[in-house]
Amino acid sequence: MITSQEYKKRLMKLRRNVYMDGQLISRDDPRLEGAANCIAKTYDVMSDPDFKDYEDILTATSHLTGKKISRFCHIHQSITDLLAKQKATRLVSHQVGGCIQRCMGIDSTNANSVASWEADQKYGTEYNKRFLNWLRDFQENDRSACCAQTDVKGNRPQRPGEQLDPDVYVHRVETLSDGIVIRGAKVHNSNSSVVEWIPVIPTRRLVEDEKDWAVSCMVPADDPNVKLVVSATRFGGHKDLGQPGPYGTADSLTVFDNVFVPWEHVFLNGEYDIGGRLALLFALYHRHSYTGCKPAMTDVLMGAVALMAECNGIEGKSHVQERLADMICTSELCYGTGIAAGINGTRSGSGTFIPDIVFCNASRRHAGMNIYHEFDALADVAGGMPATLPLEGDWLSEETKKFVEKYMTRNPKVSAEDQHRAFRWVQDISCSEFAGVSQYAGVHGGGSPRMEQIAILNSYDVERVKNIAKRLAGIPVKEKYTFDRLGKMPVK
Amino acid sequence: MITSQEYKKRLMKLRRNVYMDGQLISRDDPRLEGAANCIAKTYDVMSDPDFKDYEDILTATSHLTGKKISRFCHIHQSITDLLAKQKATRLVSHQVGGCIQRCMGIDSTNANSVASWEADQKYGTEYNKRFLNWLRDFQENDRSACCAQTDVKGNRPQRPGEQLDPDVYVHRVETLSDGIVIRGAKVHNSNSSVVEWIPVIPTRRLVEDEKDWAVSCMVPADDPNVKLVVSATRFGGHKDLGQPGPYGTADSLTVFDNVFVPWEHVFLNGEYDIGGRLALLFALYHRHSYTGCKPAMTDVLMGAVALMAECNGIEGKSHVQERLADMICTSELCYGTGIAAGINGTRSGSGTFIPDIVFCNASRRHAGMNIYHEFDALADVAGGMPATLPLEGDWLSEETKKFVEKYMTRNPKVSAEDQHRAFRWVQDISCSEFAGVSQYAGVHGGGSPRMEQIAILNSYDVERVKNIAKRLAGIPVKEKYTFDRLGKMPVK
Amino acid sequence: MITSQEYKKRLMKLRRNVYMDGQLISRDDPRLEGAANCIAKTYDVMSDPDFKDYEDILTATSHLTGKKISRFCHIHQSITDLLAKQKATRLVSHQVGGCIQRCMGIDSTNANSVASWEADQKYGTEYNKRFLNWLRDFQENDRSACCAQTDVKGNRPQRPGEQLDPDVYVHRVETLSDGIVIRGAKVHNSNSSVVEWIPVIPTRRLVEDEKDWAVSCMVPADDPNVKLVVSATRFGGHKDLGQPGPYGTADSLTVFDNVFVPWEHVFLNGEYDIGGRLALLFALYHRHSYTGCKPAMTDVLMGAVALMAECNGIEGKSHVQERLADMICTSELCYGTGIAAGINGTRSGSGTFIPDIVFCNASRRHAGMNIYHEFDALADVAGGMPATLPLEGDWLSEETKKFVEKYMTRNPKVSAEDQHRAFRWVQDISCSEFAGVSQYAGVHGGGSPRMEQIAILNSYDVERVKNIAKRLAGIPVKEKYTFDRLGKMPVK
Amino acid sequence: MITSQEYKKRLMKLRRNVYMDGQLISRDDPRLEGAANCIAKTYDVMSDPDFKDYEDILTATSHLTGKKISRFCHIHQSITDLLAKQKATRLVSHQVGGCIQRCMGIDSTNANSVASWEADQKYGTEYNKRFLNWLRDFQENDRSACCAQTDVKGNRPQRPGEQLDPDVYVHRVETLSDGIVIRGAKVHNSNSSVVEWIPVIPTRRLVEDEKDWAVSCMVPADDPNVKLVVSATRFGGHKDLGQPGPYGTADSLTVFDNVFVPWEHVFLNGEYDIGGRLALLFALYHRHSYTGCKPAMTDVLMGAVALMAECNGIEGKSHVQERLADMICTSELCYGTGIAAGINGTRSGSGTFIPDIVFCNASRRHAGMNIYHEFDALADVAGGMPATLPLEGDWLSEETKKFVEKYMTRNPKVSAEDQHRAFRWVQDISCSEFAGVSQYAGVHGGGSPRMEQIAILNSYDVERVKNIAKRLAGIPVKEKYTFDRLGKMPVK
Repeated sequence: MITSQEYKKRLMKLRRNVYMDGQLISRDDPRLEGAANCIAKTYDVMSDPDFKDYEDILTATSHLTGKKISRFCHIHQSITDLLAKQKATRLVSHQVGGCIQRCMGIDSTNANSVASWEADQKYGTEYNKRFLNWLRDFQENDRSACCAQTDVKGNRPQRPGEQLDPDVYVHRVETLSDGIVIRGAKVHNSNSSVVEWIPVIPTRRLVEDEKDWAVSCMVPADDPNVKLVVSATRFGGHKDLGQPGPYGTADSLTVFDNVFVPWEHVFLNGEYDIGGRLALLFALYHRHSYTGCKPAMTDVLMGAVALMAECNGIEGKSHVQERLADMICTSELCYGTGIAAGINGTRSGSGTFIPDIVFCNASRRHAGMNIYHEFDALADVAGGMPATLPLEGDWLSEETKKFVEKYMTRNPKVSAEDQHRAFRWVQDISCSEFAGVSQYAGVHGGGSPRMEQIAILNSYDVERVKNIAKRLAGIPVKEKYTFDRLGKMPVK
Repeated sequence: MITSQEYKKRLMKLRRNVYMDGQLISRDDPRLEGAANCIAKTYDVMSDPDFKDYEDILTATSHLTGKKISRFCHIHQSITDLLAKQKATRLVSHQVGGCIQRCMGIDSTNANSVASWEADQKYGTEYNKRFLNWLRDFQENDRSACCAQTDVKGNRPQRPGEQLDPDVYVHRVETLSDGIVIRGAKVHNSNSSVVEWIPVIPTRRLVEDEKDWAVSCMVPADDPNVKLVVSATRFGGHKDLGQPGPYGTADSLTVFDNVFVPWEHVFLNGEYDIGGRLALLFALYHRHSYTGCKPAMTDVLMGAVALMAECNGIEGKSHVQERLADMICTSELCYGTGIAAGINGTRSGSGTFIPDIVFCNASRRHAGMNIYHEFDALADVAGGMPATLPLEGDWLSEETKKFVEKYMTRNPKVSAEDQHRAFRWVQDISCSEFAGVSQYAGVHGGGSPRMEQIAILNSYDVERVKNIAKRLAGIPVKEKYTFDRLGKMPVK
Repeated sequence: MITSQEYKKRLMKLRRNVYMDGQLISRDDPRLEGAANCIAKTYDVMSDPDFKDYEDILTATSHLTGKKISRFCHIHQSITDLLAKQKATRLVSHQVGGCIQRCMGIDSTNANSVASWEADQKYGTEYNKRFLNWLRDFQENDRSACCAQTDVKGNRPQRPGEQLDPDVYVHRVETLSDGIVIRGAKVHNSNSSVVEWIPVIPTRRLVEDEKDWAVSCMVPADDPNVKLVVSATRFGGHKDLGQPGPYGTADSLTVFDNVFVPWEHVFLNGEYDIGGRLALLFALYHRHSYTGCKPAMTDVLMGAVALMAECNGIEGKSHVQERLADMICTSELCYGTGIAAGINGTRSGSGTFIPDIVFCNASRRHAGMNIYHEFDALADVAGGMPATLPLEGDWLSEETKKFVEKYMTRNPKVSAEDQHRAFRWVQDISCSEFAGVSQYAGVHGGGSPRMEQIAILNSYDVERVKNIAKRLAGIPVKEKYTFDRLGKMPVK
Repeated sequence: MITSQEYKKRLMKLRRNVYMDGQLISRDDPRLEGAANCIAKTYDVMSDPDFKDYEDILTATSHLTGKKISRFCHIHQSITDLLAKQKATRLVSHQVGGCIQRCMGIDSTNANSVASWEADQKYGTEYNKRFLNWLRDFQENDRSACCAQTDVKGNRPQRPGEQLDPDVYVHRVETLSDGIVIRGAKVHNSNSSVVEWIPVIPTRRLVEDEKDWAVSCMVPADDPNVKLVVSATRFGGHKDLGQPGPYGTADSLTVFDNVFVPWEHVFLNGEYDIGGRLALLFALYHRHSYTGCKPAMTDVLMGAVALMAECNGIEGKSHVQERLADMICTSELCYGTGIAAGINGTRSGSGTFIPDIVFCNASRRHAGMNIYHEFDALADVAGGMPATLPLEGDWLSEETKKFVEKYMTRNPKVSAEDQHRAFRWVQDISCSEFAGVSQYAGVHGGGSPRMEQIAILNSYDVERVKNIAKRLAGIPVKEKYTFDRLGKMPVK
């Protein structure tokens, strides 16, 4: 496993292909620092003695090499692996105050491990061998990846094959002797500018005449024909206040302007049915990650509520207690249901374990439906101060410092400096561009409540519960009672 | 294990001490039939070939005798036992359309198994030995029990020891050479009139000068000095419509009018700290049961929604789909979090496993907060018909039958008779006294959302999440990061 | 104006055509008493000295005769009339604890007053003259009416003209020299069994080839070819507890089995466009009535919450205060918006005033979306007692009375008898068949939230608010700013 | 009435006392432009021919001089004035996309008009005469004001008179022959940096020994001893996209560092009971303003939802329709209830009209409880794009422009440029610091839902609704029925 210094060094070796606000920028641009610091933290915790107790959660044993590797490079070989992945995600999210920016890579990798194997079984291809070759390097060198899934989609009511401009979904435009050429663009492509690999996978189910869109492949982040048009945001890291960070996000419009992909990095190439399967598998693994990071996000906001209550001297008030209980329940319902998703995981043909789809989606949907309520809770308890807090300069300038400190102090047990730290941070996470991005990501990241609703209704056998009702109503039902959602029992 | 016939035969052997509406009634009074049928079903499923596949869920191996016994008489010896108990509860609830009426007995029994052992350790008493003697008979004869916990409480702002009338909390009034005498009354005492044993346990934490109230004991349901003042309700069982049941509830004001309890049935006697512990343990086990029955209750209502959508011919409408997705999520969040409660269960000193308290309470609270919404969903999709359905006689009488059948038919794929069955049943469960009792029980049964909020806030370490916030804000924190809610990992 | 005795005497003179549970019953059947008592109260308040202060609300001056008449027979001639109607409805609802059962009659009458006039203008008919003749008798003799609107609808995805059985929407089957013959049935026909007149109006918009369904007419409640298949429910009226009532509902499947209607009682006959207009007008007037009765329903439940808090001795608790504030706001938002509907009412061509459609529907929708929450609030504060209250006999019988009284007493300031009264009444209204009917009626009565959503989206100019957004975004908009929802200003 | 140019010219004449980020800045600093532009718009609409139709709403006749003045300088002389004020506020809010920044001035002015008169009646003072003198200039010169109400409050559990530092509530520190000296600071002081006058009023009820805190006075915004420590935010105004604005907010910590106030500008001076009354009166008038601006805020967000649906080509989808209906209802319930507040307004002794307190607070509370839900709705319909939109430079730069335009286009009926405008604006208002400030202001501005709850419970007679319940339950009630919330009826 590498250090975060090594990780950042590698980033600087990449060819420059990142654009912001009309400029071609370097990967050490301060605006990218927030996202890079999150990933860096996933490296730091591995060797940090403070996290020694969590070693079995943070690391795993590679099924390829038997070596100890980062959990964030591992293919899940058991239910315990699924549980550990969820826990590792929540743990690191606590450190960076939100998204760890490294789950997309391992989620798409697990999805590819399953889909490439299934394609091989059905079509006699060799995708899984290629994939495992790539994986060996990925694990041994502790590399980072994102996942380029969401196509720009053009005119939404039309399918990929019906669009006026076929490029609005990334697709194969040419097949050469040594590989394929792809074109199109992906949006909302999180942290593509701070990783080494960009896995490209389909965004949706596909039909037979959409084979060109059924492509899975691995593209270097600095490929000559890849352009990353990035928007980024971040919070914290006020050094004078002693804050860690900054932490944040960097998403791109990722343009694939006729990118050549050699065969060794092509993991699907026209198998449209498996293409759709892969799209759903990534979504599923990613929503399973959310059962770790979304509870952590709630924990962070809950911590902020508790901190604001302390600053305002109102810890014991009934409405504060009510808000805290609400947030504990949101966090623990999402997390607990994620545990159930792991416990009810199943072994796929490839050996990779897959979490339960209904539990994953129910958890993610619940988090998504509560995110704005949680910001509401924070605003409720914080009061208006995060919106009108005097700027940092006014806490330092001779002329205003004395007034600001005198008049900003509330709970006499909290020093003026800690009041400043607390309110500055709460402003940063709840009353800022970063807050807005957190809210939108809370709704849409990894699939919105509406997408989870579709996934749930597609997976859940409503007829079976209707039969429970029919039996009670006296309406004849042929089948005897069964109920697949009772779930599995682990060994003692 | 016995049959339901044997169960009912035993009930009839009990001394008459049940009162309804001013009359002393027999235990085969039709008004008690709903509750008795629920318990009967817990016996029937054991030998019913339709449930053969669920044998490992429905039965267990006694840790006392090594014999196969009903799950509803078992002391949980493992995490798997906790999971199985949850599953068995959901399964039987599906058959009776709601509460199975038999969990209180086994929940209080598990709680007594833990508390009696802990009292012995601390006070050198022999409660656990007594308890195990009683348990042996209970398991071998497959007996039924309830749990008399909720005291009438008198003037709520006062503690037990402060009340004008000390009897408003059940308490020891005399100590004799061969046992003790207790007096007082319990309310909301579910199914006391259709079981053999009434365990009596404290309702709350107690302080040192409330030793008289710190009593746990086992009282025969037909003790000469016990009076059961019962209210009951039920649904279904319309034989002409081919319905199973009726199923329902029977709760009592259980009066202990100077009841003598021999030493062999006394499991706590003044150990006030363990008394409070026992009160909380029963609540915890019972809320764990709710992680099985509450999802089932949602399943039943969800089945009713799906059935109503079919009758009305609106299955595909977006609002119906939205309602179903909501209900699936309520059910699966509560159930999944219950699974997490089992997986994170711990072994108590006595060997009995105890589920995780935060997960149990979060699950129960979520169910309780959604119960009225679920009835709202059903009303939304059913339309007004359950409220104004012509009475049964009007579907049969020569003069009206032709009009009722002609004008009540909707979806042409559903016969007039099945329409009648469906709407009659939905009326029975959602527009009736039984519906009201379900709603109140959905809020308050096993502890209301408000009680679970208290339990959660008492169990959850808010300081720890506040520290997550403080670290991010730059406020110095002495302790290094730990987070106990990450939870356990089971073996592979 | 007549007395309630006279009203009940008239009912008894009607021909017997009411069926319940397979029997032809008399109109003084106790099961109809609840509904009849509500209407009786609308007569009683007119002469009750206790309501002298509200005379200008409860009575009006007929625009036909200039005489003082009941508000419930009046055609609204001004904004003040609209406001008074809303107030009168809330006032009487307070007395009967819910629906007053007399608004349907006056709402359909006002709708007919507008539609008959508009038909005459467009088609040169004489409907309005006929209507006014009928109205004169209605007002002078202070008569009662219902409104038969909701057709049974058969297969919902099909229009009236497409149904296999044309009778599932009431329609004209024959035109004779002296009138027409209609056939079909209406459901959810509130209080048809306790009034003198049944107005029949269309249930929906109609198209050109559905002229047979575009019929408005007035049918005597005891017409030889009308059959009323009734279901009824009620609460209260426990005489030994000194309660008024019982009050309640009685709805019918109203069968029109080839009913002859003479020309003088035909107010529309094939004018399909006005038929749809009439359907919407009744819905609008009726939802305006809901801006009076729904706040009253909330007031009653809020009163119940406050009473339960008193009985339980928890008036000051923060969750009780929160619940009360919620309910006050529901009540006052619905009522206030109803006032705005009146203030922004407009004069139709006929002179009848029509309330604002968006305000009426927003108010009704809000009430409908909150009804189950309000029952939840009541259950929350009441505790489980309404579900398990010992039956009345047990409060009276020698053997149990002493225990019941001793153990049911809570707040020492409330006598055992008042505790009984309070809990009995709360049980009656929240844990009973009547409660279920109230809940279903709260959702669907007068149109469900879903129907109001349709009405709102059809009436509201979304394009106009989109233009506000476009101007701010810099997207060119041709029209200058206007905003019709600013509303009218009354004189000073 | 003056022009907006004249308004801005006056600002530049004020002495420099505004601080931002440690610097003393000029009042034409671009960061203040957002707030200033909002107030400027309140001047512009007066003479803008596009708003000619709304003249009776936007202007009023001074009761002092009989001259036509701006509605925003008027003392309400009638119910019609209350209605017009609400309408004018909604109208101008539509133009600036949110807060108009000028209501605080007129709300505090109306409150002073009532309180100064009441003090005079009770204490024989001359405050009202002084106030009217000041008002004459204010109206004739069409001046602007804010309202400095919210004290910094120090240790919240302590009263003003109990604080360690008495300055945490602004108070009188010295009485001189020609006036008084005040010290302290106000927070969340909206637009103090872009107005001419700062009215200072108490923030809460006061007790007898807090006379020093019972001060109402008028301070010039550029008083030598006033320091304004400002934070500001804004949105829009992208000139290249043709947007109006920018519009925004500027709030200050307003320090009164021993400010001398001459007698002519002192309107209360120790009358502690009237001080509390004044605090509540301002809150009430301000919440009445919210019944105009909050619906407008919802309108703007609703317009944004409709615009996003158009850009995404999903206008007809059921979830979009549901969201729009929700927002229409929020807007119209708040607005309609505000109309009811005006209609039920009452004339105070001074002649100034006061809106109904329950309706005002119910409306404001409902808006405050929905603000985060509305942003949720917008995020739901917008999708993730506002969070990851390529920066403006990337839409312009040669290298990226073609990709951005090609891949950002969705609905083919919307040009790439209009897509950019729409998403940029939605980003600006929902995913930005401005959005955060809007959310916090939506909760806390003018008093949070929690404050409105207190105001409602203090004003509402719960005993009266409990009596409705008691009568129905059969519990004897002495008083005959009355219900003050039925409200007033206007003339025909």
